[in-house]
Amino acid sequence: MELVFMIPLAGLAAVFYAAYLAWDVLRRDPGTPEMQDVSSMIFEGAMAFLKRQYSTIAEGSGGNITIGYSANAVVDNWEEGLLTGIAFLVGAAASALAGYIGMYISVRSNARTASAATRSLKEAITVSLRGGAVSGFLVVALSLLGVSSIFFIYSQVLGNPDAIAPFLIVGFGFGASFVALFAQLGGGIYTKAADVGADLVGKVEAGIPEDDPRNAAVIADLVGDNVGDCAGRGADLFESMSAENIGAMILGVAIFTVTDNVEWIIFPLVLRSFGILATIAGLTSVPFFVLGDEWYWFFFCGLIGIGTGIAFVYITQYYTSGAWRPVRDIANASRTGPATNIIIGTSVGMETTAATAITIAFALVASFFLGSEADIPGVGGFTTGVFGTAVATMGMLMSAAYILAMDTFGPITDNAGGITEFSGAPESARHITDALDSVGNTTKALTKGFAVASAGLAAFLLFSAYLDKVKERVNVPLNEQLPILIGVMLVFLFSSLAIRAVGNAAGAIIEEVRRQFREDPGILAGTSRPDYGRAVDITARAALREMIAPGLLAVGMPIAVGLLFRFTRSEELILGDRTIDDPSGWLAVAGLLMVGTIGGIILATFFNNVGGAWDNAKKYIEAGHLQVESANPGAVETLGKGTDAHKAAVVGDTVGDPFKDTAGPSLHVLIKLLSTITLVLAPLFIP
Amino acid sequence: MELVFMIPLAGLAAVFYAAYLAWDVLRRDPGTPEMQDVSSMIFEGAMAFLKRQYSTIAEGSGGNITIGYSANAVVDNWEEGLLTGIAFLVGAAASALAGYIGMYISVRSNARTASAATRSLKEAITVSLRGGAVSGFLVVALSLLGVSSIFFIYSQVLGNPDAIAPFLIVGFGFGASFVALFAQLGGGIYTKAADVGADLVGKVEAGIPEDDPRNAAVIADLVGDNVGDCAGRGADLFESMSAENIGAMILGVAIFTVTDNVEWIIFPLVLRSFGILATIAGLTSVPFFVLGDEWYWFFFCGLIGIGTGIAFVYITQYYTSGAWRPVRDIANASRTGPATNIIIGTSVGMETTAATAITIAFALVASFFLGSEADIPGVGGFTTGVFGTAVATMGMLMSAAYILAMDTFGPITDNAGGITEFSGAPESARHITDALDSVGNTTKALTKGFAVASAGLAAFLLFSAYLDKVKERVNVPLNEQLPILIGVMLVFLFSSLAIRAVGNAAGAIIEEVRRQFREDPGILAGTSRPDYGRAVDITARAALREMIAPGLLAVGMPIAVGLLFRFTRSEELILGDRTIDDPSGWLAVAGLLMVGTIGGIILATFFNNVGGAWDNAKKYIEAGHLQVESANPGAVETLGKGTDAHKAAVVGDTVGDPFKDTAGPSLHVLIKLLSTITLVLAPLFIP
Repeated sequence: MELVFMIPLAGLAAVFYAAYLAWDVLRRDPGTPEMQDVSSMIFEGAMAFLKRQYSTIAEGSGGNITIGYSANAVVDNWEEGLLTGIAFLVGAAASALAGYIGMYISVRSNARTASAATRSLKEAITVSLRGGAVSGFLVVALSLLGVSSIFFIYSQVLGNPDAIAPFLIVGFGFGASFVALFAQLGGGIYTKAADVGADLVGKVEAGIPEDDPRNAAVIADLVGDNVGDCAGRGADLFESMSAENIGAMILGVAIFTVTDNVEWIIFPLVLRSFGILATIAGLTSVPFFVLGDEWYWFFFCGLIGIGTGIAFVYITQYYTSGAWRPVRDIANASRTGPATNIIIGTSVGMETTAATAITIAFALVASFFLGSEADIPGVGGFTTGVFGTAVATMGMLMSAAYILAMDTFGPITDNAGGITEFSGAPESARHITDALDSVGNTTKALTKGFAVASAGLAAFLLFSAYLDKVKERVNVPLNEQLPILIGVMLVFLFSSLAIRAVGNAAGAIIEEVRRQFREDPGILAGTSRPDYGRAVDITARAALREMIAPGLLAVGMPIAVGLLFRFTRSEELILGDRTIDDPSGWLAVAGLLMVGTIGGIILATFFNNVGGAWDNAKKYIEAGHLQVESANPGAVETLGKGTDAHKAAVVGDTVGDPFKDTAGPSLHVLIKLLSTITLVLAPLFIP
Repeated sequence: MELVFMIPLAGLAAVFYAAYLAWDVLRRDPGTPEMQDVSSMIFEGAMAFLKRQYSTIAEGSGGNITIGYSANAVVDNWEEGLLTGIAFLVGAAASALAGYIGMYISVRSNARTASAATRSLKEAITVSLRGGAVSGFLVVALSLLGVSSIFFIYSQVLGNPDAIAPFLIVGFGFGASFVALFAQLGGGIYTKAADVGADLVGKVEAGIPEDDPRNAAVIADLVGDNVGDCAGRGADLFESMSAENIGAMILGVAIFTVTDNVEWIIFPLVLRSFGILATIAGLTSVPFFVLGDEWYWFFFCGLIGIGTGIAFVYITQYYTSGAWRPVRDIANASRTGPATNIIIGTSVGMETTAATAITIAFALVASFFLGSEADIPGVGGFTTGVFGTAVATMGMLMSAAYILAMDTFGPITDNAGGITEFSGAPESARHITDALDSVGNTTKALTKGFAVASAGLAAFLLFSAYLDKVKERVNVPLNEQLPILIGVMLVFLFSSLAIRAVGNAAGAIIEEVRRQFREDPGILAGTSRPDYGRAVDITARAALREMIAPGLLAVGMPIAVGLLFRFTRSEELILGDRTIDDPSGWLAVAGLLMVGTIGGIILATFFNNVGGAWDNAKKYIEAGHLQVESANPGAVETLGKGTDAHKAAVVGDTVGDPFKDTAGPSLHVLIKLLSTITLVLAPLFIP
């Protein structure tokens, strides 16, 4: 218990550090009167949005509390319902507060960054980074302080048993979730609507440059960067952090009930405190000793989490930076128009799910394995294994304050660029903000990869916690959960390969027709006949070559998963008071099968129907059904064949072609193949 | 057993009917020498592709048999392994044969349709429909004859017990699956590669019209229609049909072992036979009496299946026909360019998954419920319920021969149009083939909706059969499977709403800026200042209004699913020798949660990364990194800002914006919210 005092200490330290950073930003030169003018318009817009948003959320919260309360009331659990409701309010308020302050400082930082940019790049970077870090530290600190003080009050002051209190504070996570949903959704819609709207009405319709002061939507666009990326992502990470704190505490309860050692429940909060201090001071910390002799197993779990966070940064970089194949492929595909750009982009996007799923699966398996090796008297390997995954998840979020600081850096520099343009600052300042802006774009992409991984791991934690709560009679071991992850990934990866195969095979036939045109000019003149047979044959070879990879994937994946789980160390499946030994292989394949099937149905439906709808939207326009009001009042104009609208519809139709005729129908087959292959090979998976 | 003789009778009747149709098509006028010339080029190309494809498949089959054989060998089940291997070969051969003959007739029908089109529309329709129907009847007949004769040989001749034989013929389904995978994948890649390639190199590069004889790729394009739609879809439906026959038989075994009445195993084949006869003669058939006194419950299940098939035709029509909102929305979005066309199209496509998932879920629940009401002495409601879903699935495929005929009609008319153009036939014939072609497009879209639904239901059947096989100790009741379907649907529908919200909110700000430009001309002149605040406020209102629907969906869905399954009649969960009563609510929510989480992670990863990749592909081009060989040998040309490649990249970037900044990050939040809300509301779902 000696390390418990660290929790409030670390929380307050983070708050003071954030306050220092805020003070440091605010005392700087706020820029020219023009800059301040623009900045204050952004400020007012952002605050007006937040106010309106929070009042919407407040209305929704009333409903939620009522529901949560009655949920407990029906089972006659009045007190529990009340405590959960209070925790909900605290969580929602803490999330809203973190968002509000973070955005306040971020919006205040932009004019100061613009002003600093008129002097030096170094100063501009300092201001924008410090402004961003305010959010980062506040989010981490408020989550820690909120969860720990509610736990303290519920258990020590109100006298709920230590084993019950963690379940009561789930309401805190729910409140944070609820605010985050609307912050991210509302903010996300706002920022893109303003962005797309400003571009279309300004650049496209009126022909004026980007960020031109004559465009009334420009300020809304700048406001959008703050409410979407800054407040939205802050709420997202606040929620991940709180969910992980609470989920890990709930999983610790299982070990606490045996060892009667409350450290297991409090450990996640202690770990988080050290994480904060490490982030501020640059210390590496080892608070794992509170876990007793077997601490090192969990320490390795924490390292796996940190490694996972780093892996996600690299994965995101590989897939979204111009230095590697994926982005270059898309750039190359642009040469043949918007349709091929979209097709190859979709294929690349689907491909990225593989690395993500495999990394998450590896992190869960490895930390489960390490955790299950810990030998706590009376506690089974399954329970310590799940706790190990909780520690890994928390390890990943150790660096959350930095990540969030990087993320908020983006909108600050983006805004600073807009303010510079708007206020007619010198060209040199614009160069500096442009450089900052492109750094900001990269950091934003990286933090998104981090956010999705942390959300995923947090959700797995919560899922374990849910199963822990509803009934103690069924646990779903990792070898059911992981194949499910792989099952959904499989249908995306398979679709990616199928869509890309069309592009590759089309390249082969294009080369051939070009060669024939080049070598026999008589073909285009109409005097000699092209060699159709050769074109047919080359396409056939290309198509059959391209079908190998997705085909192998479809046949090989269920076999690989089944064998992997068949021959690896298996965990017992606990079903109520009964334990089934060694369910690994067949249970893993069942999970893969069920979710591969369902994911396949949904994705195939999407591909088939979107392709058909695009096709017919083009036909609809060609048939002259698309009519708009013309410039002459009262008259209507038909946008038919040859208009820009028609050209746009042709792009959609082309994008839809490989969707509806290759990926969709191939998925129908995949889902049935998965079932038959597993049925045939079932003997392999049963020990 | 009296009705068993119907099985070979119906199978042979279908074969003879197909032979009659084929004879009728082949005896007709094969057209002018020019038409025959084009047609024979298509024929040669298609056959060359099939030959090459089948030899690839044959190589793969060798590997599969070895694997399947050793799977059984490791558990010392030599004989079973051998029988499964033989069934695999028969299934693969039957599928290949159906594909070969169907395509032979289809390719032979196209010139005859083109020739008929020079005379009358009526004759052209007759030829193309009859040509298509050959495939339809052959597929149904070969599946029925293949499954029933292998069952007969394995059980009656080789003396395997009736309860074992259905498991041995799973190899037949696997063989059909394997051929279908490559037929659909290879064919799908071929058809779109040839299509896209022919368009890009012909229309775009050389500036010659579509289907122009000077383009060497045109014949490949016409070949592609046959190998993709005709052979591919035929193999797909052959597989669905075989999978359902076998899956239903396996599920019948459970009832057979109690009642000792082999009708329960054979019933699916009898039902299929009557379906064939009904299709040929237009009879309605009631072979349900073999099931004894309680037959009517299963009869209703069959009706539900037929209704589901019809529902899918309407759903597909609604989403892909110009007569309704979805396609009109896409057409309207085309007015603002290719990017908005793609964005709204994607949103519509994701929306369609809801109707699909709900219809499948309804069909499964309703037929399970009806089936479980049947009172068979000694057989539990769970077993008869699952059998009910099998009957519903088969009911849906009753009309498969018609569906397949409609599907093959498409490539025949498409080819006939190409032949007409190619051979210089009169203008009037082209009008007729154009009319046929547009009918063919609609029938192709409809059959795809049917194919995905049948594939889905067949896969559920096989999944039940798999669980039946691996261990008799766990069954996964519908209230775990269905929420999983709904979980995946939820993340697609949520994304659809989030993406569309951006479009709607952008519309609001565009209207406002336009209004300001119109009402105060001084703004564009630079003399008066736009009302930024109003634009900010309008966007805020629009964004917050638009977030309501996805927000309600996220909060409401887990509650609705939990309550629905909590208060409906629950099934017992059988875990080995132990039965848990009434697991409905919490188990349903667990399924929703787990799969919503995993689907959300995968989809968010896709959205985030594809958006980032598109963004950076644009930046890559803007930075001047995209270089191509220029016309002067040895020199390179940079495709930078302002080129067509750059414009295409801008479209991709715009499409990616709402993906990466609205849908992706909102999904992070959704997956955590799902967990917290269920944790809080858990008491509601536990009886």
